Amino acid sequence: MEYIVQARNCKDCGNYNLFGKGLIPVLKKINHLGIAVNDLEKAIEIFTKAFNLEVGGIEEVPSQQVKVAFLPIGESRIELLEPTSEDSAVSKFLATRGEGVHHVAFETDCIVDSLKTAEAQGLRLIDKEPRPGAHGTKVAFIHPKSTCGVLIELVEEAAE
Amino acid sequence: MEYIVQARNCKDCGNYNLFGKGLIPVLKKINHLGIAVNDLEKAIEIFTKAFNLEVGGIEEVPSQQVKVAFLPIGESRIELLEPTSEDSAVSKFLATRGEGVHHVAFETDCIVDSLKTAEAQGLRLIDKEPRPGAHGTKVAFIHPKSTCGVLIELVEEAAE
Repeated sequence: MEYIVQARNCKDCGNYNLFGKGLIPVLKKINHLGIAVNDLEKAIEIFTKAFNLEVGGIEEVPSQQVKVAFLPIGESRIELLEPTSEDSAVSKFLATRGEGVHHVAFETDCIVDSLKTAEAQGLRLIDKEPRPGAHGTKVAFIHPKSTCGVLIELVEEAAE
Repeated sequence: MEYIVQARNCKDCGNYNLFGKGLIPVLKKINHLGIAVNDLEKAIEIFTKAFNLEVGGIEEVPSQQVKVAFLPIGESRIELLEPTSEDSAVSKFLATRGEGVHHVAFETDCIVDSLKTAEAQGLRLIDKEPRPGAHGTKVAFIHPKSTCGVLIELVEEAAE
């Protein structure tokens, strides 16, 4: 018996992809770990003093209604997320689950292909198309219902 | 005014440490991310087919009453944890929180110093002394109550 493989080059990244065969794109690394916190200053104190991490930056992200502190660790980073409004998704997370890991971000070379592969495997996409993230990245979220309770963010870094 | 700095060499790793000043040991990377799952086979299917990760190994850890699949990603790995007994801590986690991120493991060059630093900063240690982990590692857990709801594991890899 022969199988026909649906092959194509990704329009977005140019990589050759045996679509649906799971050959590429491979996830490169954990880009970051988003942790929902009630008090950003207190959380920063814990992660810097008790774990000797350094704060790479703090910024407000109005679109997500959060204030974020970035703490690099190896090739990844910890993102401490404090909501700036009661309407923030992080506020709702804190109200129902309390502080803890809010999402896990995986880095991919081609978010378009990664999303298509995820969708072809039946995962429930929150973002069907990538949307602009911080610092020129493209990002998309996948619903935790389809990924063992973990809210997963896919991130494609900006081309250098 | 002068400050006296309590300096010493760590008996365990030999590193010079300005104890309590948070100079060393720095956490090197996210060693792994432990995800509690109800059905290991189904979880492996999601993470391999939808995200193109590969299974590096599957093993039972009788001391933790879990079956674990390791999926390397960059310098880290995902650990999918299925309980093998109702008495497993992962069973209790699943019963109360459902599937999701169970713990985050940070790698350190000296777990003894990392634990002392964490304790000096008032964190609640589950393991006051490191205990043997898989593959010659030393591990210790820190209670999520003191670390923004995140169960943190410290890992020191075996010397090469």
